[in-house]
Amino acid sequence: MLKKSPLALGIALAITTLASSAWANEPIQPIEPAKEINGAMAELGKKLYFDPRLSKSGFISCNSCHNLSMGGTDNLKTSIGDHWQQGPINAPTVLNSSMNLAQFWDGRAKDLKAQAGGPIANPGEMAFTHKLAVEVLESIPAYVDEFNKVFGKEGVDVDKITSAIAEFEKTLVTPNSRFDRWLKGDKAALTADEQAGYKLFKDSGCTGCHNGPAVGGNSFQKMGVIEPYQAKSPAEGLVAVTGKDADRFKFKVPTLRNVEMTYPYFHDGEAETLAEAVDVMGRLQLGKKFSEPENVQIVAFLKSLTGDQPAFQMPVMPPSTDKTPRPTPFEK
Amino acid sequence: MLKKSPLALGIALAITTLASSAWANEPIQPIEPAKEINGAMAELGKKLYFDPRLSKSGFISCNSCHNLSMGGTDNLKTSIGDHWQQGPINAPTVLNSSMNLAQFWDGRAKDLKAQAGGPIANPGEMAFTHKLAVEVLESIPAYVDEFNKVFGKEGVDVDKITSAIAEFEKTLVTPNSRFDRWLKGDKAALTADEQAGYKLFKDSGCTGCHNGPAVGGNSFQKMGVIEPYQAKSPAEGLVAVTGKDADRFKFKVPTLRNVEMTYPYFHDGEAETLAEAVDVMGRLQLGKKFSEPENVQIVAFLKSLTGDQPAFQMPVMPPSTDKTPRPTPFEK
Repeated sequence: MLKKSPLALGIALAITTLASSAWANEPIQPIEPAKEINGAMAELGKKLYFDPRLSKSGFISCNSCHNLSMGGTDNLKTSIGDHWQQGPINAPTVLNSSMNLAQFWDGRAKDLKAQAGGPIANPGEMAFTHKLAVEVLESIPAYVDEFNKVFGKEGVDVDKITSAIAEFEKTLVTPNSRFDRWLKGDKAALTADEQAGYKLFKDSGCTGCHNGPAVGGNSFQKMGVIEPYQAKSPAEGLVAVTGKDADRFKFKVPTLRNVEMTYPYFHDGEAETLAEAVDVMGRLQLGKKFSEPENVQIVAFLKSLTGDQPAFQMPVMPPSTDKTPRPTPFEK
Repeated sequence: MLKKSPLALGIALAITTLASSAWANEPIQPIEPAKEINGAMAELGKKLYFDPRLSKSGFISCNSCHNLSMGGTDNLKTSIGDHWQQGPINAPTVLNSSMNLAQFWDGRAKDLKAQAGGPIANPGEMAFTHKLAVEVLESIPAYVDEFNKVFGKEGVDVDKITSAIAEFEKTLVTPNSRFDRWLKGDKAALTADEQAGYKLFKDSGCTGCHNGPAVGGNSFQKMGVIEPYQAKSPAEGLVAVTGKDADRFKFKVPTLRNVEMTYPYFHDGEAETLAEAVDVMGRLQLGKKFSEPENVQIVAFLKSLTGDQPAFQMPVMPPSTDKTPRPTPFEK
């Protein structure tokens, strides 16, 4: 999305090529800026992402629980849905979610497009229907025009709505963290403690699950391998999708990118701090009790994973018309 | 906030001076861009405006009910507060609110700074306390640094918080509407119907209250002059501030700038469309029943009052720390 001169691009490419050996043997790879984005579709998707008229109440948008000012999360244990319902699970970050092997903690949506329709129609979240969402957008000429232009064929439907939201979400990657700059060869980008934390993170086996460019998001793993986890959430993970008993309590490994911003942690949001999350993960997944200084170093490393946050103009939504169905926030 | 060359400023000034006679005798004046803004303070205020950690739940920010993607309102009859409480009154737009003679429908806050602290501590809105809001911000070093830099003295307090929010809100003006361009001499900026609507608006007496650059916001008037208004809201207006019986049911005249975006209308939000609002106002305030074609023309004029919406980058909030008090959305 950034405009660069051919010279700047050439230099960037040369640096990338030269330095690629720097992370060839590392379990974590740098995050690259979003590529092959349909800009017009992403702009439409941005409006939809922020538009609370896709909820029954007219109050809840995608951004309510995946707030792009706060690491793509709501920073709550579990989210607030229509009529202040308490959600069953922690809202995962939307940042870098295009890199997940599937969406939701249990992977029940295969990609961002399949995910985007879920919360709109979930009675505990936005509590709307796809039919009404389409009716709202169809009643607003500026939206209809934009859909027609972006998709090159007439009409608004859920397929187009979720495609546009997914296209916007694909732009939400966070390159250029201090850790990535270090990986790429800038040895001053990390302190000694942060480097020691990364070494501990690798040597202890954390990278067995938290690896790749997203430092997670690419496998399902059992929560509580060595010791069982006493979850506060009724969610049982992958078994809900596969029906296999072996998948009970397997959850998608969350990305650790921007993890300083995506508190609280775990699928039930019960770990309030990174120190607590590191301690629990060490004991339950690896059978390892990190000492206080080790914990501090690993946390320091994790905080170096915060990348450039998405930078964009706040969208302005086209107003409703006399024909637009009105929100009903206080009706059951 | 805009940087202009001295030449461009000179030309702009010359044009303004030359054309000033164009609206000298008009009851409505063009809106000018915000001036004398402390940019650093407004940037801090923007973060605070969007930060839901100033609410008990961690879910509601100023922008929740005064959404800058939707004309500075929530487009609901009455707002949704903590625990989904139904508010008693329609949320007025924050756009151009720096031009109001006082804030809130009953004018109980003398200016934006005095207003900004209200919703944070209102148990039916953000349901927090000023003390906790300060504690949250004090626990976040990036916020503390920014407060210290902006105000040139150490510490976070409510006075600084509300000053910064008010400074951001002062930037939220909407110049350059088609109506203003027409006022300034661009006769092609309005259609014949829109011009006829403006003439009707003046000739019928609407400009008796809806005048000045904000087309309102500069007086309190009784709702229901000729016929009484059967309000759905228990609010009684200015009497709550002055205690004078004569002020019962006097409300601040709302601005009509961007009125196409600020539906629904009136202090109880009971008028869903502009056509309905124009009809009710004509009958109750002026004793005049506008014909269907007259109503259409006035509505067309009103829609020409939509100006340039605030254009800014979505803020990124600094993350909470281990010391930050956590939100309690599901506790009473």
